[in-house]
Amino acid sequence: MRQPLVGIIMGSDSDLPVMQDAAKILDSFIIIYEITIVSAHRTPQRMFDYAQTAEQRGLEVIIAGAGGAAHLPGMVAAITALPVIGVPVKTSSLQGLDSLLSIVQMPAGVPVASVAINNAKNAGLLAAQILGVKFPEIRRQVSDYKKSLEKMVLDKALKLETEGLPSDIS
Amino acid sequence: MRQPLVGIIMGSDSDLPVMQDAAKILDSFIIIYEITIVSAHRTPQRMFDYAQTAEQRGLEVIIAGAGGAAHLPGMVAAITALPVIGVPVKTSSLQGLDSLLSIVQMPAGVPVASVAINNAKNAGLLAAQILGVKFPEIRRQVSDYKKSLEKMVLDKALKLETEGLPSDIS
Amino acid sequence: MRQPLVGIIMGSDSDLPVMQDAAKILDSFIIIYEITIVSAHRTPQRMFDYAQTAEQRGLEVIIAGAGGAAHLPGMVAAITALPVIGVPVKTSSLQGLDSLLSIVQMPAGVPVASVAINNAKNAGLLAAQILGVKFPEIRRQVSDYKKSLEKMVLDKALKLETEGLPSDIS
Amino acid sequence: MRQPLVGIIMGSDSDLPVMQDAAKILDSFIIIYEITIVSAHRTPQRMFDYAQTAEQRGLEVIIAGAGGAAHLPGMVAAITALPVIGVPVKTSSLQGLDSLLSIVQMPAGVPVASVAINNAKNAGLLAAQILGVKFPEIRRQVSDYKKSLEKMVLDKALKLETEGLPSDIS
Amino acid sequence: MRQPLVGIIMGSDSDLPVMQDAAKILDSFIIIYEITIVSAHRTPQRMFDYAQTAEQRGLEVIIAGAGGAAHLPGMVAAITALPVIGVPVKTSSLQGLDSLLSIVQMPAGVPVASVAINNAKNAGLLAAQILGVKFPEIRRQVSDYKKSLEKMVLDKALKLETEGLPSDIS
Amino acid sequence: MRQPLVGIIMGSDSDLPVMQDAAKILDSFIIIYEITIVSAHRTPQRMFDYAQTAEQRGLEVIIAGAGGAAHLPGMVAAITALPVIGVPVKTSSLQGLDSLLSIVQMPAGVPVASVAINNAKNAGLLAAQILGVKFPEIRRQVSDYKKSLEKMVLDKALKLETEGLPSDIS
Amino acid sequence: MRQPLVGIIMGSDSDLPVMQDAAKILDSFIIIYEITIVSAHRTPQRMFDYAQTAEQRGLEVIIAGAGGAAHLPGMVAAITALPVIGVPVKTSSLQGLDSLLSIVQMPAGVPVASVAINNAKNAGLLAAQILGVKFPEIRRQVSDYKKSLEKMVLDKALKLETEGLPSDIS
Amino acid sequence: MRQPLVGIIMGSDSDLPVMQDAAKILDSFIIIYEITIVSAHRTPQRMFDYAQTAEQRGLEVIIAGAGGAAHLPGMVAAITALPVIGVPVKTSSLQGLDSLLSIVQMPAGVPVASVAINNAKNAGLLAAQILGVKFPEIRRQVSDYKKSLEKMVLDKALKLETEGLPSDIS
Repeated sequence: MRQPLVGIIMGSDSDLPVMQDAAKILDSFIIIYEITIVSAHRTPQRMFDYAQTAEQRGLEVIIAGAGGAAHLPGMVAAITALPVIGVPVKTSSLQGLDSLLSIVQMPAGVPVASVAINNAKNAGLLAAQILGVKFPEIRRQVSDYKKSLEKMVLDKALKLETEGLPSDIS
Repeated sequence: MRQPLVGIIMGSDSDLPVMQDAAKILDSFIIIYEITIVSAHRTPQRMFDYAQTAEQRGLEVIIAGAGGAAHLPGMVAAITALPVIGVPVKTSSLQGLDSLLSIVQMPAGVPVASVAINNAKNAGLLAAQILGVKFPEIRRQVSDYKKSLEKMVLDKALKLETEGLPSDIS
Repeated sequence: MRQPLVGIIMGSDSDLPVMQDAAKILDSFIIIYEITIVSAHRTPQRMFDYAQTAEQRGLEVIIAGAGGAAHLPGMVAAITALPVIGVPVKTSSLQGLDSLLSIVQMPAGVPVASVAINNAKNAGLLAAQILGVKFPEIRRQVSDYKKSLEKMVLDKALKLETEGLPSDIS
Repeated sequence: MRQPLVGIIMGSDSDLPVMQDAAKILDSFIIIYEITIVSAHRTPQRMFDYAQTAEQRGLEVIIAGAGGAAHLPGMVAAITALPVIGVPVKTSSLQGLDSLLSIVQMPAGVPVASVAINNAKNAGLLAAQILGVKFPEIRRQVSDYKKSLEKMVLDKALKLETEGLPSDIS
Repeated sequence: MRQPLVGIIMGSDSDLPVMQDAAKILDSFIIIYEITIVSAHRTPQRMFDYAQTAEQRGLEVIIAGAGGAAHLPGMVAAITALPVIGVPVKTSSLQGLDSLLSIVQMPAGVPVASVAINNAKNAGLLAAQILGVKFPEIRRQVSDYKKSLEKMVLDKALKLETEGLPSDIS
Repeated sequence: MRQPLVGIIMGSDSDLPVMQDAAKILDSFIIIYEITIVSAHRTPQRMFDYAQTAEQRGLEVIIAGAGGAAHLPGMVAAITALPVIGVPVKTSSLQGLDSLLSIVQMPAGVPVASVAINNAKNAGLLAAQILGVKFPEIRRQVSDYKKSLEKMVLDKALKLETEGLPSDIS
Repeated sequence: MRQPLVGIIMGSDSDLPVMQDAAKILDSFIIIYEITIVSAHRTPQRMFDYAQTAEQRGLEVIIAGAGGAAHLPGMVAAITALPVIGVPVKTSSLQGLDSLLSIVQMPAGVPVASVAINNAKNAGLLAAQILGVKFPEIRRQVSDYKKSLEKMVLDKALKLETEGLPSDIS
Repeated sequence: MRQPLVGIIMGSDSDLPVMQDAAKILDSFIIIYEITIVSAHRTPQRMFDYAQTAEQRGLEVIIAGAGGAAHLPGMVAAITALPVIGVPVKTSSLQGLDSLLSIVQMPAGVPVASVAINNAKNAGLLAAQILGVKFPEIRRQVSDYKKSLEKMVLDKALKLETEGLPSDIS
């Protein structure tokens, strides 16, 4: 197996339904990744080790998802020099506003690249864009992906323009 | 010098004007404390070591202040079994709402005892109340402190009732 | 029966599904507690009496849960010198943001130790950590609990790493 | 001296610059009031006594101002059957949003009549409107006051319409 | 039929499930009220007429419920000298935070007495407390109601204390 | 077919259930419109072209709906001199507060006319009011519509007043 | 003097420093307007009359600014069939969030076109865009204005690109 | 001059005091960048051209800062396949919460890497981390920078520990 370029980690297996979208988009780009559970709060030593060895293990980007007092992305970013992408996971009481602020409001010196609440797909895409700086083939794939998005919208627009409003929207 | 019972830490020396209120109230109770700077994001190894050795060094309570994506209290709580009190420091853009949510919204299994935004004095008092579980003398001091607060309000109330509204309030 | 060390109170029996998590974790630590309903707004005299007699009845920590204009934790903290832990209960309209701010934003002199919205389990754990200051056995239990959390996450991580993403996550 | 009909209380003398507006408007209506400091958190027994004796001392309405975890209006309302008006005092970190939610989000059974943040003048006016239910003369005064407000706006409107925009607004 | 003392109005019949709680509590106090639909936005003239004639028709208090840009309570308060109680109705997108701010943040000179989001029951109780200023019998009823609330909580507390935690709470 | 006067666009076909309310109200006024999908983020060139040709194609008003980081209304307004109405579409995590702020907080020089979250009906009405500046017949229709709204409320009010509260509201 | 096409109204003369920006931009387009003070809360009858006669007096658009529980734009929109633009004026406690929600969250049937907090300039521009539907000359002016904005930015960009970062930015 | 690798753009020259921090950190890493003003709203064509030619001009990362309805980062990300970092600039009314949500809440398919409000320094650092994927020397610089941060904190900690609390903190 080839060496993973991206590490996808999350604080709990309950984040898996959200975080798997990052894996899927990387799969579609045939970018090798690893995916596992690393909790800043419940396995701090494992988090420390994961972040500290990430670069030497060949990872180029880390995607970290967490909810509530979401410390995983920021703590990993504190330890590694790799770019870290944070995915704020939606929470039941404050809807992910807590996760977002805990991830994005990092102090000067230790950035986390935050994407939208629950938007792990965009975290995967952003990882691809970052890898595209080094691998022209991946950048080309990102460009193609953007074109496919455009085409999908154009097709839907054409359908709406020719068929009109569906009668049974609720 | 006696062994410190309370560790007061903060992410940056810019938090010192806020966090010294915790020190002052402990001073007034003659409770020995240590105070230093430990940044979860800029000195993660130091944070790790601080939290991991806190109990064996004789600390009983840790007070941690931080602002923005305030990870220090939660990360220390992840590592030590001691009770950890978090002080959300007010920030310039989101007024400390980010600090508060980053500190208080901890996941099940790893509590942080949050006090009000910028209220390090209450963190010191809470530390005294916690120490009061073990040291009856400290609990008595807390009771006396509460009585002194009551007396202070009663004096002000009496002044207002007898002297009436000051004429020059603006 | 042994003397309860922790008092768990809540403003309404509708808070019981949330607050029982505090009881369960204390049960698992074999820490004796009492649990009852005390409403600051509907039974102010009972609240007053409960708080005023708590210390002499042998309680060491009080856990108080309430929602909306959640005054119970703060009022109990106003009356007793014991440490008081507040649990903001989620509300239907403002999702517990009102409960959180009503509990955590206490004025200087009267701290409440706030945990996350609906996180009564953490209130129980924090109570155990506070009792651990006095009872080394309870602190050891908290340490063991933290290790069990770590093991649980490591097991789940191993499962994900060896079995890969489940195919049927929705 | 005549018996006060309105009690104006506040948690701290630092609330006096805000709360005196309630006194001033009552003065202008020649409604007798008493004004003092009663802290739910620092003088809980005084608060209890104040609320419990308010009705028998002849008060008809209570105006209570407080900031942050603002429990004073709600606790007084818990104890007395008199109508209680709450004034959320602006706070330095959360701008009074905490005060507002702590005051207005009372549970079913114990209402507090909340006015706008820092708007003690309106608390005084509302007290006058409430007294106007019993005293026709006060209702007439409220009507006259509303007419004077209207006239003041009409005068300013006429000035703007005839003189045009001032040239030196910054 | 006796003359209504309280007018209950709402912006839309969709507010009826919320607003009927005001009617029910007034019914239980045998206080005569009228209840109808008055929309500030869709029937401005009717709103104007309602508010302008309220006093001469014998109303003593008006309860107005509305959601979103909730102008009804404030506009009625602008026109009549009677005390106006506002009920912020919960909305689907912003959960009633919009309704609350639209109702409570009135400018100096025109108070609205706001209760909690969706808490029409408290609006009814507050109306009773206000009427209690004039009618001693109603104040006595409010006192009795408060005692019944207290008894209800004490009964539930006794049940919980004697029977323990129910085993099937979910 | 007559020339459309209003262009209704949205970022995604998932916005159609919300945005069709704009179409329906224009239909009821017999105002010709076009409706299609234009994504600022997925079809930026199409968005650019749409906005740049709108005026010459005879459109007089554009209604644009979008959710989250809702850039469509503002970008269209940046390109065309026509009035642009923005409809903030409710989002799953932040309930449309993100959409609202992204649409309404435009910088000086490039206004967007924002309506309420999910309120595409009002966007259609506002478009009709704007067209009413040029077409007296449409303004008359708007007046008639307002009268029909008034009548609808009056009918419901009469029903409530004569039939009383329904017994089975839940 | 020519007939005003735009009416600029505000709830208080304290809103004048904000609202005059609407006047200035209309001045620069040589669009005739009237400007005055109309308070929904303090002069409800005047507000009613103003809105009811606006159309027959020849106004085509109304710009209404207000702060806090900002009812003026919505109430005027309730009464007239003309398009109404709302300017949420920044408030001292909640920074204009209250004004914004009170203005923008109008119920179905009665739209207000909200612009950004304190952005009266954009209200003036939007009024010009709306008038541009009827008056081609005004639409041409709006286009020219947009070009001048573009040129201003291009000039600043050129300056920054050629001169580099100023050394004394603080 | 060497080819710039990073493009720093902002919507207005008023953002320069914030955005220059990105330039300064890149300067310290001797990473070539270009910096200019590109407004999505006032110069949409320039924005379009800038984004569309960025890749072919040799840029590898784009940093875009904007405030309020901050569309610049998202629109640039819509057009280019390069990674785009967004800097939410603090605003006077909503403190940058509007900027943050407008930047971070991007729809699936078009990520923006958001950093904290006003934290352009972190945007520069994140750009360096991203370039570090391709240029090992830059990654080494990032590692060194992190070590220098750590040392700076350790020095301050040592100073506080040896010298104690300064006596004149206010």
